[in-house]
This record gives sequence, structure tokens and C-alpha cells, in this order.
Amino acid sequence: MAVSREGETESSHLAQTVEGTTLPTLAESQKNTCDQFSQTLQTPMASENERRRNWVLNVPEPPGLFSKLKTSFKKTIFSPLENKLHCIGKQPLPALFSILNTIFPPLSWCKQYNVTKFKSDILAGLTLASLCIPQSIGYATLAKLDPQYGLYTSVIPPLIYSMMGSSRDIAIGPVAVVSLLLSSMIQKFEDPAVNPAAYTKLVLTVTFFAGTFQAAFGLLRLGFLVDFLSHAAIVGFMAGAACVIGLQQLKSLLGLSKFTNNTDIISVLTSISKSMHTWNPFSFMIGSSFLIFILFTKYYLARKHKKLFLLSAMAPLLSVILSTLIVFLTRADKHGVKIVKHITGGLNPTSIHELQFNSPHTAEAAKIGLIVALIALTEAIAVGRSFATMKGYRLDGNKEMLAMGVMNITGSLTSCYVATGSFSRTAVNFSAGCETAVSNIVMAVTVLISLEFFTRLLYFTPIAILASIILSALPGLINLSEAKYIWKVDKMDFLTCTAAFFGVLFVSVEIGLLLAVGISFAKVILNSIQPGTEKLGRLPGSDLFGDVNQYPMAMKIPGALIVRVKSALLCFANANFIRAKILNLAQEEQNEDAIESAEDKVQLVILDMSNLLNIDTSSIAALEELHNELESNGMKLALANPRWHVIHKLRLAKFVKKIEGRVYLTIGEAIEACLTSKSMHASSLNMV
Amino acid sequence: MAVSREGETESSHLAQTVEGTTLPTLAESQKNTCDQFSQTLQTPMASENERRRNWVLNVPEPPGLFSKLKTSFKKTIFSPLENKLHCIGKQPLPALFSILNTIFPPLSWCKQYNVTKFKSDILAGLTLASLCIPQSIGYATLAKLDPQYGLYTSVIPPLIYSMMGSSRDIAIGPVAVVSLLLSSMIQKFEDPAVNPAAYTKLVLTVTFFAGTFQAAFGLLRLGFLVDFLSHAAIVGFMAGAACVIGLQQLKSLLGLSKFTNNTDIISVLTSISKSMHTWNPFSFMIGSSFLIFILFTKYYLARKHKKLFLLSAMAPLLSVILSTLIVFLTRADKHGVKIVKHITGGLNPTSIHELQFNSPHTAEAAKIGLIVALIALTEAIAVGRSFATMKGYRLDGNKEMLAMGVMNITGSLTSCYVATGSFSRTAVNFSAGCETAVSNIVMAVTVLISLEFFTRLLYFTPIAILASIILSALPGLINLSEAKYIWKVDKMDFLTCTAAFFGVLFVSVEIGLLLAVGISFAKVILNSIQPGTEKLGRLPGSDLFGDVNQYPMAMKIPGALIVRVKSALLCFANANFIRAKILNLAQEEQNEDAIESAEDKVQLVILDMSNLLNIDTSSIAALEELHNELESNGMKLALANPRWHVIHKLRLAKFVKKIEGRVYLTIGEAIEACLTSKSMHASSLNMV
Repeated sequence: MAVSREGETESSHLAQTVEGTTLPTLAESQKNTCDQFSQTLQTPMASENERRRNWVLNVPEPPGLFSKLKTSFKKTIFSPLENKLHCIGKQPLPALFSILNTIFPPLSWCKQYNVTKFKSDILAGLTLASLCIPQSIGYATLAKLDPQYGLYTSVIPPLIYSMMGSSRDIAIGPVAVVSLLLSSMIQKFEDPAVNPAAYTKLVLTVTFFAGTFQAAFGLLRLGFLVDFLSHAAIVGFMAGAACVIGLQQLKSLLGLSKFTNNTDIISVLTSISKSMHTWNPFSFMIGSSFLIFILFTKYYLARKHKKLFLLSAMAPLLSVILSTLIVFLTRADKHGVKIVKHITGGLNPTSIHELQFNSPHTAEAAKIGLIVALIALTEAIAVGRSFATMKGYRLDGNKEMLAMGVMNITGSLTSCYVATGSFSRTAVNFSAGCETAVSNIVMAVTVLISLEFFTRLLYFTPIAILASIILSALPGLINLSEAKYIWKVDKMDFLTCTAAFFGVLFVSVEIGLLLAVGISFAKVILNSIQPGTEKLGRLPGSDLFGDVNQYPMAMKIPGALIVRVKSALLCFANANFIRAKILNLAQEEQNEDAIESAEDKVQLVILDMSNLLNIDTSSIAALEELHNELESNGMKLALANPRWHVIHKLRLAKFVKKIEGRVYLTIGEAIEACLTSKSMHASSLNMV
Repeated sequence: MAVSREGETESSHLAQTVEGTTLPTLAESQKNTCDQFSQTLQTPMASENERRRNWVLNVPEPPGLFSKLKTSFKKTIFSPLENKLHCIGKQPLPALFSILNTIFPPLSWCKQYNVTKFKSDILAGLTLASLCIPQSIGYATLAKLDPQYGLYTSVIPPLIYSMMGSSRDIAIGPVAVVSLLLSSMIQKFEDPAVNPAAYTKLVLTVTFFAGTFQAAFGLLRLGFLVDFLSHAAIVGFMAGAACVIGLQQLKSLLGLSKFTNNTDIISVLTSISKSMHTWNPFSFMIGSSFLIFILFTKYYLARKHKKLFLLSAMAPLLSVILSTLIVFLTRADKHGVKIVKHITGGLNPTSIHELQFNSPHTAEAAKIGLIVALIALTEAIAVGRSFATMKGYRLDGNKEMLAMGVMNITGSLTSCYVATGSFSRTAVNFSAGCETAVSNIVMAVTVLISLEFFTRLLYFTPIAILASIILSALPGLINLSEAKYIWKVDKMDFLTCTAAFFGVLFVSVEIGLLLAVGISFAKVILNSIQPGTEKLGRLPGSDLFGDVNQYPMAMKIPGALIVRVKSALLCFANANFIRAKILNLAQEEQNEDAIESAEDKVQLVILDMSNLLNIDTSSIAALEELHNELESNGMKLALANPRWHVIHKLRLAKFVKKIEGRVYLTIGEAIEACLTSKSMHASSLNMV
């Protein structure tokens, strides 16, 4: 390589003496090359083409790396601040209001708020609360916390979110997937059965970290991090998590006493078969009959008769009340039916002193916090955005992240665990006719009142009923029609989806996530490493060129091979691969043509650069090699329609000079200019 | 998301009842939509446009994932085998010859070989040997092996390569960078000063693994792995390695006795300053005066007078002979000048029993073997290819890998360490006028004769002279003009280059490599995650559209915003980012236009899809969201020139239906079709 470069340096020295060192002079010298062409042609059409070629060759200098970094820094961080400060200086009051508006989005709608809207919100909020109370208790047991923590989490976070969040439909509180994620990851460090207090402290610490990460993502505008879980990965992950959660509930539903701490299907099924002899038929009967009742109201009654929607939303609460009454009246708890027993009532206690920043598990807590933060944000933003689109307003991802972050940090200080937007409850909130985030406030106040006054009533609530309430929410997480759609549209996406599903189901929640993210990124990289190439042909009756496979009616140009690379980057990782591929194509084409007629032999290879966004020095070296190899095979290389950065770099590397200025705005112009001097001229013009 | 999908399923059910379920029917229904358009226009131009739109919409089905995998498997592995077997059945003799030709490329030129060529090869081979003998001994000491191992490595590997390799210029043997790499990585596990026999065994085992990996890469056609080190990374890495090697040679040049095992500049300089009091002025004088002599002949005499080239090639051997004589005559070894002493003579001994596959370091040996295999291949293929291009023949990367692999495996069984193509010696071989790989055979035989008869003559050769021979080869590895070129053309590449350089110099060889590969791939991923967008305008006097920044003469179309995404993939990682960016652009444009004139307000957003190679389900969801958001802002979304896989997936996902069939072959047609029904019609046609 050292040697090849020496040769090159010489030739570039030569080039410098010919064309001087500055760029405008280079452009002039290229005009001279153009002039040579135009002299051979001397038609108005040709001079028009020359004018266009000069557009391609004499582009303004694109912004460099440093100026790009500066602009992006200024745009995201400096300008908004400066703007606001500037406004405050000029018009202090409106500017202050605009800042407040940015921090508290509800200010934008609170002026138009009226009694009708408030009525709708109260109804939606009460409906939400009736579903939220039993679900919160259930999810708290799924997270292996005492039941009251679920209720706490349904009080403070919704209140904070309703001040800072911009979604009007989302229902905030504990959710199934996050609860599962917390318990499956944290119990590796603290066993909730052995030391529940230490476990709770660790959960609260994780919540604090999750909130901090979420707020930081929002402030640093890292909203794109949420997109690392692709749509297909989420579908697979959610379905897998739903299956795992369902398996976990079998313990409560069957009233088993011994159960594994692992979440994968094999451990769980082994554990169930081992302790099946301890099952409790009363538990199972109560749980399964109410599960059938809830599913019946949800999937049959509510769909048949829209008016019965409220009944389906209330069904969980009704089940809790009825089953509690049944157990209380029959004293089934004496026959082995497990009951909730004591729930600590009263307001959320402070938990500042529970946070542990000096424990041996702090680093692990931060890591778990990061994963939980991302999953919680993914769920909340996905659900928030789909309802916002439905109602026609917009969500700012970064602001949502900040709101979620502040709500979870505050939550961690007031005995709440990680809260986020729930798929199922948001749908109920929407169907119940909520207008604004006030429905979340109504719900929070209702839960607060229940905490204060009604916790004692839940003493006899059977654990099995909580399992059936969780189970009844799971079908909503498994989206078979979406999986079918993914299979139909994109097979690689389907692979990601199934990998996430089986990873969660057979190994663990983290492995499932890791697999999904890994496959998604491997796809992006693989796409860049071994891209395909496509031959182009002229579309009949036009000056357009298209892939001959995509457009079977496209016609070959005799004497020319037109190639396009299926990649946006020509870089170190693929340049040599592409070089070899184009050379092979050209040689094959030459051999085929030689059989047909010697006149039509390929003498021009046009590389359509229109979709190449950038190149690097490795790829320029590969292009130079391609040029040399084609020359020694009696072919010329021409470039068509290079983009801004590409033509700029090719000029800096003096590659344009090396291929004698054969760079054109369109493929048609390249054919016209390069095939005219040959006998091909007439036949190619006939094609036009 | 579950909920939004439910809505979608309904709409797709609706769509199915309207258009049936099979694809041809979908196409027909789209023709109907087209017909509605053409009815409003009823001009021949419009019907021509309709015909073209049908080209876009009714593409043949692209090959699926499985058929692609099958084709690629068939093409790379099955077809060549089948072809050959088929040929053998038909014409056994020529087919057998063609197979032999594939395995032994020299068969292709051996027919044209004659006495003139043989004379050239003998001269080149002898020149090569005169340079190779002192360099081999020097590189063996760099690799911390006994000197004879360097000579062994210059015998068997060149012989094997000259049978199997396809390069005619490359000079095979030990090289500086690989020797450094081996000693710096292996001495962590076995100290050559403490247990030289175990160290040698480990080196041979690593050589065996390196050969196996190289052969496997060749057989499995993994040639692209070599490209993972970008051109810029190689430049930086080589320069860093040259500096590190130079620093290591200071020990021998100064005649120091204590020296560090680390290779980074800080450890080496500290070590030198600590043991500087033990330096030997005689060693230094001999070494430095001959270094000046070699550099003078190489960089001054040979460049001024081409005829003196042979002298510069012989200078190292001359220096060895002269310095040995001087030491022998003055008995300088009694004054502390370190000498080579005993070199074991004779043929390469077998080393099958030295290979260790059960030692505790076998896994490490395999890992080091992999790294060394890749570096050696990178160097050999880079140097081989640049000389092949110069002489106008082609190298097959996969065959070269196989040849290198077989040569190193055989080498590991005959006491050779890793051999590869040397930059400096290949240049000498080329300049001395080599014609074929026979020059390598001549060199190997010459080294063999020296091993048999002349090793005793090297007893008094001072170690310092070996250091000066290595030092004199280093400037060729530092390519400042190339670094300057990289800085000029591509700043990101320059970052990779400097990272590799400083990584090698200040930390270690592996860290330097890792940094370079890491930065290169991070660049590829970052490019896909946050791509830019560009506004397009019509180029005057044409139907072409270009980036308004690249072509400042491009004109805006009133009422339409034309956007192109700077990425080849619209996928999970960037779709939402792009969605938000396009929406912001459209809203900004609307606001600006509103100030100018209400009539020119943007009502059409055209997304130029010409450079989007593929999409996934996440990005289709984002496009749907964009469509909805634009609609609610009073704008329409139209697509122009989608590629094969893109339009196929958009049709499967029924997205074409959702945007009412607004998919066109060109941007011009999209403007014409979508703006005609409005008042914009006249003004837009005026622009055409």
C-alpha cells in the first residue's frame, strides 16, 4: 500500500501543477475538459448538458463535521434557552407564561375547561378507579411487594403526571410487564420471601434510578433511545411477558405454596408439577369462575352491547367484592383459601430514608433502573402516541420522558414503585369518555380515599381473585393479528418478534430483550456490509432509469452497463465487495455481448450514485481500483447524479480528474456524452 | 398499541371487503383509483402518467428472505461444485485441469514461462534474499524467538505460496507488525526470557490457529472480514506499530540490558531513562552509523540514480557483513557489544510435537491466532492487490486467504511462525523486475542454502545492526502524505486513523485495533440512527429535482414540500425521528408561507423514496402516523419513486390504499397529479 500511494502522490503532484491548488481552479480545469467534449459535439443540446454538468461539479462546499456538531449543539441546547431569555428581557409576562406552559402542558387546555368536560372526566375517573384498585393490588403481588404499594403507586404518580404530561388519555399507575421485570431482576439480589424490607428498599432505589434516567433522557433529548425496541420486538416481548405473567399467576390460582423464582416456562411447569399435590380446589374454583365472569363481560357482553361497557369495566371490582363476601360468609380461609389479610391503610408514607445509595447492590440497582426506565417509557410513549393520533393532538417525546421521570422520582420518595402508562386502563379511560388528564386526578383521589377508609374491607379478599384479574388483562398484551401482519409484510421483523417471544418465554425477560435489540441492530449492520447491486434499464418513452427486476419493461442500453448499489454508504466495510461485484457484472455482460454482436460490447459502466449519501477514503480507493480494472478491460467508468458530500469528497480526492471528468447529472446525459464519440452514437440516440 | 391496532384491523377488514384478498385484485382496485384521477384530467399526458403509475404499483413480487438465502447458498457453495462435477462427467481431462488450475493458479502462467522470464526472476530472487536474510533474523528477535526461526519462516511459506497463491509480485516471509503483535500478546502468558521453549511452542500453536482461521475464511468465502479494518484504520495502525517497533529497537541499538515488556511509549521511555546508565557506546556507534548508511542508500542514492537500486537493496546485507567483520577483527564483543552468537543451522526441523492443544493457554492461543490471522491477511491482500492493479491482473481474495492459510498451517508444522506478504520486500521484488512467483522460490532456496552452510558466519554479527535494519524499514510504514489526504477528504476517517495511532502508541496494539474497528462501526450505526432530511427543488429547465443546498439554483414548488430522507433504511431506529422531522419541516413551511400568501400554503408533502432501499413494520407504522398528522394539518402525503421492496411492503401493509394511491414514478408526476385539482394547477404548470 505504501508503494501504491507513492505512485499516487506523484500523479497528484502532476495534477497540482496542471490545475493549481485551490478549488475554483480545479473547477475551471474541469470546465476545460468539458469544453473538449462540447467541441466534439457543438450542438445546443450538448452545451445545455454541459451547463448541467457544471451544476454537478461546482457544488458549494458542504458543512464540515465541526460546523455540523456546532449547529446541532446550538439547535438542541443553546437556542431554545437563548430564545426564552431573550423573550423574558423583552416581554416578561407572556414569556414567563410560555415557559410555564412548556413545563406544565395542561395550562394550554385549562382555559377551555368547563363543567361538561369535568362531568365526563369524573365518570371516566371513577370507572378507572374501579378497575385500578384491584389491578394495583394484583400487580403489587406480581412485583412481590405488599398490596398497599400498588395502591400508593396509583396515587402520587397520576397526580404528578396530570400536571406535567401532555397526553389527555393515558392512565398512569403500576403495570404488569414492569412489575414482572422488577421482581424477576431484583430477587436475584434480595429474596422477598427472606427479607421483604430489604427487597422493598431495593425496589424503591430502582424506582429512583429509573425516574432519574427518564428525566435525564428527556432533558438531554435522547428520545430516540426508546426506538431501539422495534415495533416487532415490542409485539414479541409483550406476548412473551404475558405468557410468563400468566404462568406466574397459576401459583395463586391453584393455591400452591412452593413455587420457583425463575420465570421461564420450563422451570415454572416443573415447579407446578412438583407441588401440584398441595393445590387447593376452593381457591381454584373461586378464581376460575370469576375469571370466566370477567372475560365474559369483557369479550362478549361489552362487544355485543356497547351500553354494557361500564359493567365490563366494573367487573373486576364486582368480583373482588363478591368473592370477598363469599370467603367472609363461608370462612373459606379456614379451608386453605389464601386471603390478602392486613393491608396497611392511610396516605403514602415518605420513603426518603429507604433509598440506598451505599449498599453493595447500588450499581445493580442503577442497571436495573435503566432497563426498567426504557421499558416503561416504551410502553407509555407507544400508548400515549396512538391515542394522541386518534384524537388529533401531538405528544413531544422528550417532554413526556421528563414528566415520567419527575413522576417516578417523586414516587420513589413516597413509597411508590415504577409507574407508567397502562395499555388496558388507557383504553378503558378513553372508552369511558375522558376529556383531559383530570380523569387521572379523580382516579388518584378515589384510590386515596379507599386507602384511607376501605383497606380493612379487603381483609378476606382471596389471593386467587387477584390472579384472575391479572389473567383477564393478559389477552390484550398478546396481539396475534399484529404478529400475522408482521409475518406477511417483513420476514426479518418476524424473526425479531419470535426471538423476543421465545427468549422471554424460555430463558428470561432480559435475554428476550437483548435478543430482540441484538437482531434488530445486526440487521442494520448486515444491510451495510454486503449490499446488493442492481442493473438499470431505460423505462420506455422516458428518460428515467429503473431496476430491470422491478420494472420488467425497462430496456437495456447497448454498449453500456448501468449499475446502482443497494446501500446508502460506500465505506470500508462494503467497498471492496461492491468493487468485485461490479467488475464481475461488467465482465459477464461483456462475455454475453461478445456472443451476440461485437459492436454492442459493453464499453461504458455507469455507476448511478443517486442513493449514495456518503463515502469514505477506503471507498474512494476502491473506486480508483475499479476504474483501473475497468480500463484494463477496455471499459470506461462514468458517474451519474452524485450527492453533495460524495461529489465534494471525490473532487477533493481528485477522482473526478482521474476519470477524465465523466460525472453527469443524469444517466441519460452520461450515455449521450460518453457513447457519442463511438459508433454506438446512432443506436443509443434511437433509443431515446 | 393493542388498541390502535384493533382500529386498524377493522379498517383492514373493511379494505378487504372492498378489494378482495389477493394481490392482483388490490392492483385492480388501485387502477380504479387511478381511473378516478384520469377522469378528472382526460388528457393524453395524464393517461401516459397513469400508465407509468401502474408500472410503480404493479411491480412483480421481489424474492423473499428464504429464496434469497437459498440463491446465495447455491451461488457460493453448491453451483461451483456442481459445475465442476458436471464438467468432469462430460470432459474429464480439461475439467480436471480446470480444477487443478483453481487450486494451483501458477498453472495458468507456467505454459508461457521462458528463459528470459526465469533470468529476471533469478535476479529478483537473489536481491530479495539479500534483504530477506538480515530482516528475517531481525524480525525473529522482535518476535522474541531465536534468530533461525526467522530464516525458517523465509523458506517453507514462500515455497507453498508460490504454488497456491495468485500474486506474482508479493514477497512472503516474516514481517515487522506481525512479529510485534505476536510477542506483545503471547508474552503475557509465557515469558520468553524465563521459559523460551514454552514460549516458542505457544508461538507455533498460534501460527497453526492463524493458518486454520485463514484457510477457513477462504473456504467459507468470508473475504469481507478483511475489510473490517478500514483504509484509514490501517494507515493509523501501521504508523503506530512502526513507532512502537522503533521504540523497541532502542534497546538493541543502545545495548541496554534491562527493558520493559510493555509496548506503550510511556513504559518504554521510562524503562530507557531508568537503565540509560548501562548503555554501550560501541553498540550505538556501529548501529547508528550503519543505519545512516542504509537510509542514505535507500532514500538518497536509489532515488537520485536508478542504477544504484541494487546497492540500496543489498545495503542491509553489506552492513551485516561489514559490521560482523568489524566486530570479529576488533573483538568488540569483549567491550560489551552484544552479538548474535550461535544460530542453529540446517533445514527446518519438524515441529508437529511442539503444537499444544491441551495446554491451559490453548483458548488464548486461538484468540491471538484469530487477531494475527486478520492482521496478516489485511497486510497481504492490501499489498498483493495494489501490485496486481499496477500490472493489470486480478487477485481473488478468497483464494489468497486459502493459500495463506495452507502456507501458515504447513509453516506451523515446520518450525515457522506466522508469515505474510511484506510491504517493503514486495516493493524491492517489483523494482528488481520479478516476473512470477518463481522469484519467491529462488529466495527460499537461497535462504535454505544459507541456513545449511553460512549460519556460523553470523556468530559475530552485532545485535545493534539487526536493530538498524529493522529501523530502516520503518519509515515505509509511516505514511504522512496519506494521513494528510485522509484529513483533507474525510474528517471522520481521520478520527479513526488517529484513534488507531494513539491507541497503539499509548496503550497497546490490541486496544488500538479495537478502537479503530469500534469507531468505524459506530459511524455506520450512527449514520442509520439519526439521518438528516433534505428539501428538494426543481432544477431549472428540467424535470429533475435536487437538494436545494447542493444545487442553489433549484426552485421551490409553491404549495408543495418535497423531502428526501438521508438514509437507505427507514427502520425502527430512525422512523420516529424522521416522522417528527418531516412534520416539523411541513409545519414550519406552512407558517412561513402563510405570511407570504395564503394561496401558496403547503398542501402537499412529497416524500422522495428513491434512495430508500428497505423499510420495516415499525417504519410503516410511522408513515401511517405521519399521514394522519399531515391530514389533520390540512396536508396530503404523496410518495415518489419507491424501490422494489418498499412498494411491495407498502402494498402488503395496505398503506397505498390509505394514502388513496398517491404513489408516483417521479416527483414531477406527483405534483402534476396532486396539485391539479386545486387552484395551484396553473402556477405549477407554469414552472414545468
